[in-house]
Amino acid sequence: MTQPHEAEGGATRDRDAVVRVGVLGCGNVGAALVELLRDHADVIRARSGLDLSVARIAVRNLSKDRGLELGKDVLTNDAEALVNDPSIDVIVEVIGGIEPARSLILDALKLGKPVVTANKELLANVGKELLEAAETSGVDLLFEASVAGGIPLMRPLRESLAGERITRVMGIVNGTTNFILTQMSEQGSGFAEALADAQNLGYAERDPTADVEGFDAAAKAAIIASIAFGAKVVAGDVYREGIADITQADISAAADLGYVLKLLAVAEELDGALAVRVHPAMVPATHPLASVRGSFNAVFIEGEAVGDVMLYGRGAGGRPTAVSVLGDLIDASKNLRSGARGATIGSLSRKPILPIDEVRSQYYLTLDVADRPGVLASIAGVFGQHGVSIRSMQQKGGGASAGERGERGEHALLIFVTHLAREADMRATIHDVRELDAVHTVGSLLRVIGEEG
Amino acid sequence: MTQPHEAEGGATRDRDAVVRVGVLGCGNVGAALVELLRDHADVIRARSGLDLSVARIAVRNLSKDRGLELGKDVLTNDAEALVNDPSIDVIVEVIGGIEPARSLILDALKLGKPVVTANKELLANVGKELLEAAETSGVDLLFEASVAGGIPLMRPLRESLAGERITRVMGIVNGTTNFILTQMSEQGSGFAEALADAQNLGYAERDPTADVEGFDAAAKAAIIASIAFGAKVVAGDVYREGIADITQADISAAADLGYVLKLLAVAEELDGALAVRVHPAMVPATHPLASVRGSFNAVFIEGEAVGDVMLYGRGAGGRPTAVSVLGDLIDASKNLRSGARGATIGSLSRKPILPIDEVRSQYYLTLDVADRPGVLASIAGVFGQHGVSIRSMQQKGGGASAGERGERGEHALLIFVTHLAREADMRATIHDVRELDAVHTVGSLLRVIGEEG
Repeated sequence: MTQPHEAEGGATRDRDAVVRVGVLGCGNVGAALVELLRDHADVIRARSGLDLSVARIAVRNLSKDRGLELGKDVLTNDAEALVNDPSIDVIVEVIGGIEPARSLILDALKLGKPVVTANKELLANVGKELLEAAETSGVDLLFEASVAGGIPLMRPLRESLAGERITRVMGIVNGTTNFILTQMSEQGSGFAEALADAQNLGYAERDPTADVEGFDAAAKAAIIASIAFGAKVVAGDVYREGIADITQADISAAADLGYVLKLLAVAEELDGALAVRVHPAMVPATHPLASVRGSFNAVFIEGEAVGDVMLYGRGAGGRPTAVSVLGDLIDASKNLRSGARGATIGSLSRKPILPIDEVRSQYYLTLDVADRPGVLASIAGVFGQHGVSIRSMQQKGGGASAGERGERGEHALLIFVTHLAREADMRATIHDVRELDAVHTVGSLLRVIGEEG
Repeated sequence: MTQPHEAEGGATRDRDAVVRVGVLGCGNVGAALVELLRDHADVIRARSGLDLSVARIAVRNLSKDRGLELGKDVLTNDAEALVNDPSIDVIVEVIGGIEPARSLILDALKLGKPVVTANKELLANVGKELLEAAETSGVDLLFEASVAGGIPLMRPLRESLAGERITRVMGIVNGTTNFILTQMSEQGSGFAEALADAQNLGYAERDPTADVEGFDAAAKAAIIASIAFGAKVVAGDVYREGIADITQADISAAADLGYVLKLLAVAEELDGALAVRVHPAMVPATHPLASVRGSFNAVFIEGEAVGDVMLYGRGAGGRPTAVSVLGDLIDASKNLRSGARGATIGSLSRKPILPIDEVRSQYYLTLDVADRPGVLASIAGVFGQHGVSIRSMQQKGGGASAGERGERGEHALLIFVTHLAREADMRATIHDVRELDAVHTVGSLLRVIGEEG
């Protein structure tokens, strides 16, 4: 408390509208934030009375051109010194990854400095530790931008719905996979072709694993579940299936039945336990999530009293994400000035994570079977033995596939949609159905969501 | 400061987690709030550390059964005494209408008591006065529930997007008219039939004027414009057209062209002036607002940096609305305990309201014309003279209408969609087109939105 800024005295400082911001990292989001702080200074001042000034930016490479006009000495490569600089009031962390971000944030919180972060990995893995550190220090840790970029999600969950009992959250939280599935659905592309389009347009990385296999969505699902249900959920707790095996045939069969295929992150509370998962799902075409196209994201929240709420927007991109960071930064700065704190979620409790076997879903299943009397009865018998109730069955049959595989006789394709069933029962059903002579191939197994329960 | 509660002393009081809530009004929303405070007390305590207790409820009729179990002496018919009761910390106003709500809220604010209100009329007419009173007293006035019921809208606008420059907001903010238009679109009903359905289901009042003629939506548009643009806009500033003249023919013509008809509240800032209006509009079927069905509401926000954001949910109903009131109540109570304030919007500035004549839209226009050479050229000439550029024209011709009105010769229906044009220019175009011999009838004029500009 010896720096000149503080020496002005408490009373002066309270009225001082200048907040000195230290930014850790200057990639897409950091650079967009610096630009917004400059271009929207008038809006920010009018709405909050604050003058947010970028005091220092810590970067790895001091000589890289970031297209920003920055004062001399703003850039530094000493992130620790920035955090410890007593003239800096608030810290924004947009480095990404666990370390050094984690240590820097913990240091800042210990110094009583509010922190705004856009770091998904961090929240999804060590969120509980960070939230507890903020609680201990009594300062804000805000992270709106860590999930779903420019969409207001954390603030609605933490504040608007603070008095509500949330029962389920379903999100399209990965723009790359939603772009790919939209291309497959609207252009008739195959998966590989749609992925290549996404890569050419810059929506997908050269190595698309994190998106396509659902790792990115799983990290976001962990954060959403933590905040919606106030419990510790980490990325590793999330059951995960990607979209690499989705075929054009699945997409068109879904369309025929009135569904759209989406990669969903689903978090729900069932009898005190949490089920958190990421997988492709068939969504009824009339469900609001079905209309989320291209690289847009949306999160659909089901509450006991509020009913259905959906929040839609850009889930990624430097500028949309920077708007969320800026909203948090204004909030944290106002709280700092008034000596208050923003919404806290208290400490995250521990709730059991329900294994995927215990989760109940509706299922879509295709079977390639011999086209002869009695086959459906024997299959339906197996479903019944495992307590899986069939909601609808469609037969697509015979000619074409029979011709191709003449030696195996007449074929038919059976398409089942079940009522809600336990995952373990469905898997046991498939195991036994596979044993039936009349069943040649077990095709796609997909979950149907947004219809029953 | 002489009541027993205060006498416990500041330090004790700060740590005291009990907040005594006074509720003005106990209709749908008030009763639902009281129930939520009871049923969700555990959730509220876990998330906020607060124990919100309904101390008193002011009602007009003390003997009416509200289905609530209330302690003796909770109900009162002296609203003024409730506001002035020093043991009551926070006021919730769910009476509706201007007076006595306005006076009671002003009294509460003067006493330094935070106020949460769900009162649309109040905010849309005397919002500036109330916000200034809150500013003067330095206490919270929160009103999430005054627009779009259970949808988090005010908090995202005031906080999440606090650093963003919003360019336009378009909302489906009236569930009754959206239900009617959805019925017309999906069931093929006429307007009268769909209205009767809405009345039978309790979505529409016996006298549906406020909904159908757009008065309800206009009040909400005024509040949205005030908050999004930080300027004083009252209900009377809003240009308004309802849906009573919409025909099944309009709906199906819209569908043929790939549009869905919606009643939209639109607020935008154009060169420092505000254009705020409510009217039916043709929305491209792929636009997120097009998928908002039945009695659901949604607000689509366009920002300079964040791009498109949409917030969707239940726009009315006791329980969804009470969830929004409760979110505000928790926020205000936490701020009260910590001596802080929630998001303020400062004082509302004065910005010019753009007259509808100056607003630029795309238009959809149908003309019943004589089916002979040269007609289109003369009509297109009139459009051109007024600087209205035609984007597409479709001719639906002849047979049937010619048969019906044989004495007037062969007819054709021309359907125009224009590029963006000034309203005054479009009106002048229609005036002159009407003068043409070959034009028998000028049909529907509808605005197209969400496509250009």
